[in-house]
Amino acid sequence: MLPAALLAKKRDGEALSDREIRFLIEGFCEGKVADYQMSALAMAICIRDMNSREIRTLTSAMVDSGERLPRVTDRPRVDKHSTGGLGDKVSLILAPLLASLDVDVPMVSGRGLGLTGGTLDKLEAIEGFQTQLSLDESSRVLRKVGAFIIGASERIAPADRRLYALRDVTGTVESIPLITASILSKKLAARLDALVMDVKVGSGAFMKTLARANLLASSIIDVGCHSNLPTTAILSDMDQPLGQAIGNAIEVNESIEVLQGNGPPEVRELTIQLCADLLVAVDKAKNHDEARRNLNRQLDSGAGYERFIQMVHMQGGSIGEPLSLAPSETLCAKTEGWVDLIDCQSIGEAIVEMGGGRKRSDDRIDPSVGAKIHVRIGDHVTVDQPLLTLHCPSPIRSEFVQRLRGVVRLTESLTSARPIVLQRLGQDETKNAC
Amino acid sequence: MLPAALLAKKRDGEALSDREIRFLIEGFCEGKVADYQMSALAMAICIRDMNSREIRTLTSAMVDSGERLPRVTDRPRVDKHSTGGLGDKVSLILAPLLASLDVDVPMVSGRGLGLTGGTLDKLEAIEGFQTQLSLDESSRVLRKVGAFIIGASERIAPADRRLYALRDVTGTVESIPLITASILSKKLAARLDALVMDVKVGSGAFMKTLARANLLASSIIDVGCHSNLPTTAILSDMDQPLGQAIGNAIEVNESIEVLQGNGPPEVRELTIQLCADLLVAVDKAKNHDEARRNLNRQLDSGAGYERFIQMVHMQGGSIGEPLSLAPSETLCAKTEGWVDLIDCQSIGEAIVEMGGGRKRSDDRIDPSVGAKIHVRIGDHVTVDQPLLTLHCPSPIRSEFVQRLRGVVRLTESLTSARPIVLQRLGQDETKNAC
Repeated sequence: MLPAALLAKKRDGEALSDREIRFLIEGFCEGKVADYQMSALAMAICIRDMNSREIRTLTSAMVDSGERLPRVTDRPRVDKHSTGGLGDKVSLILAPLLASLDVDVPMVSGRGLGLTGGTLDKLEAIEGFQTQLSLDESSRVLRKVGAFIIGASERIAPADRRLYALRDVTGTVESIPLITASILSKKLAARLDALVMDVKVGSGAFMKTLARANLLASSIIDVGCHSNLPTTAILSDMDQPLGQAIGNAIEVNESIEVLQGNGPPEVRELTIQLCADLLVAVDKAKNHDEARRNLNRQLDSGAGYERFIQMVHMQGGSIGEPLSLAPSETLCAKTEGWVDLIDCQSIGEAIVEMGGGRKRSDDRIDPSVGAKIHVRIGDHVTVDQPLLTLHCPSPIRSEFVQRLRGVVRLTESLTSARPIVLQRLGQDETKNAC
Repeated sequence: MLPAALLAKKRDGEALSDREIRFLIEGFCEGKVADYQMSALAMAICIRDMNSREIRTLTSAMVDSGERLPRVTDRPRVDKHSTGGLGDKVSLILAPLLASLDVDVPMVSGRGLGLTGGTLDKLEAIEGFQTQLSLDESSRVLRKVGAFIIGASERIAPADRRLYALRDVTGTVESIPLITASILSKKLAARLDALVMDVKVGSGAFMKTLARANLLASSIIDVGCHSNLPTTAILSDMDQPLGQAIGNAIEVNESIEVLQGNGPPEVRELTIQLCADLLVAVDKAKNHDEARRNLNRQLDSGAGYERFIQMVHMQGGSIGEPLSLAPSETLCAKTEGWVDLIDCQSIGEAIVEMGGGRKRSDDRIDPSVGAKIHVRIGDHVTVDQPLLTLHCPSPIRSEFVQRLRGVVRLTESLTSARPIVLQRLGQDETKNAC
């Protein structure tokens, strides 16, 4: 088999055989298929697509390029993956919350680049928190706490890691087959018993429309289930940030509020729905209602928070008071009206530029920078009501306050609130597919 | 401008601006756009195509990546480019023939790889013939003889050279925009006054159908004319080899026969039609009839042959008798019938494997290997009439004789002969376009 001939096949819109896909991925790992061949293949896949058999084989070949996580407890093992969005701190809450219900959550997460924050960056706002653990260390945390949140190992799905780096610089990120294989190869290598996807939809998300989000979710569910990983998906709103807090330290603080039974209701609601899917999938609850009852109890009793503190300690962190934030200034409404638009793009860009995110992968992050959005779409506000508080070092704060005036848009006509969960691709469909 | 964003634009089928195309090609030359980005772009262009403005800019950016040939005489300067086919020895005849009519032909040619032979390999069957000349040396040959045939200089269109190497291994050769830019960038850098394309069509050619050949020819004519290079094209038959001889030394011998006024009529006819287009384009003939009369005279008088011998001598070669060939064996017809198919693919593969061509670019060539096809499609043959003579070293000859039995297919029903020239995209359309 010649790589060029296989690339030409995909170029012409034909399906590649399982043997051909494995030849390309194995060749890529062994250096027999060059970067410039793999990037051209990625481009052809972006434009010509892959059928579900091809996606499954691609995923499986990427899993086989590396090692798999060992099982270290008898507890069921689950994970959640989000496609990313502004203010998405669900992982910080979900992992310890599920662990408090005797479910293992070995969470491998990423750093922020561009507009979306990274879970690891948020956790590193906690003094001493270690995200690079050895296999032994992470196994120990999992055994004791039932959850860890760490960075990716070079040994898990190395083909995905290399391919992703190429896709990032060749305009080939936005491809449902490639996204599916990238996400699932890492999750399958983690030997999960269930996975739930949080596919964000809206102006602040990678998937701008419900239709496109649906396609991605269906593809992931199809491949997950055919690979013996029961998978469900929730499509959630990202036309506005999730919760009030955006930034690193500030999102840790909001996560703790939710874990203590408080915090913004939409953060709690989304977390509970994602967790409920997982609990039902691994038979830790008979149905969603039972799962929700248990989850609500764990939040209100502080059991989830307790587990979070254990995880932080086991990963080297120490936390007591809320994390400190940069000095703040609050923007207030100048007129009365209904909130009808919150400009995620501008808020995300401002936070990156204030030092709260990265433009380049080697930028350093200032965890104390952030924003708090006091309103949600559909809220009615009166004159002088706070809209947004900016946490930012003094020298540059007034510039950004100026810039962010207008990111919360008011209208004179009544505007409806948006539900946080737009659609569920649920357990039932999944169980049938599996 | 970020390369990934431009690649995504082409991925989505949008046209790139002139500035964006130049940014990518210049970046590629300077190492700021990586091979894996350029190959992904090539794949996107293959699938999404380019409009004629984009192709013109791409071509022009590739010309500007290198140097241009200086003008060294006052004579008009022309060239022919063929898309390649079995037995295509037209360059060897056309260059000295036109030189004998006071037209300069500074021909830059390639080596064979795969099924199609290379003009340089054919000429190197002549003892001492040098294909790598310095700029000074080639200018001297052009001044004295009016024609040279040499290998490509690293300094002409280096962006094309590097891009072509990538396309070859990424399944992105077959793209009309990329083929157009590749061919024309080198021809424009040669500062020609006219160009004629020989686009081969048929089972033995890169372009299998007349429609596809037409698209390529039109694209090249469009870009050539918009770049002040009057360009015409002839679509010629490649459902059977051109002429009788296939191989290196054997094709030199057949070229000499044509230059001496003999040889297969279809080789002479195609050469004259290509030359006539060029003579009319540079006003060396009022019309095709006058051009044909002059060309026929130069062949029949041996003036073209004389110029060929001068060129060979000036490029270091010495030639007297016909070049010697490997020992031969002839396959004869076992039944009576009409020739209805000649399997170019199998003949080409056999010649490569006998040592007459290259599978890899570092293979050595045995110039004495070759074949002579005694019949053409539409010929009537009787039992024991010679069909094909194979020139091949003794140890492996019988194996290949066996293999090639059947490459000339006979049928019982009358089959028509094929014209060598299928279509002309002529001077008139071109002059208007220019």
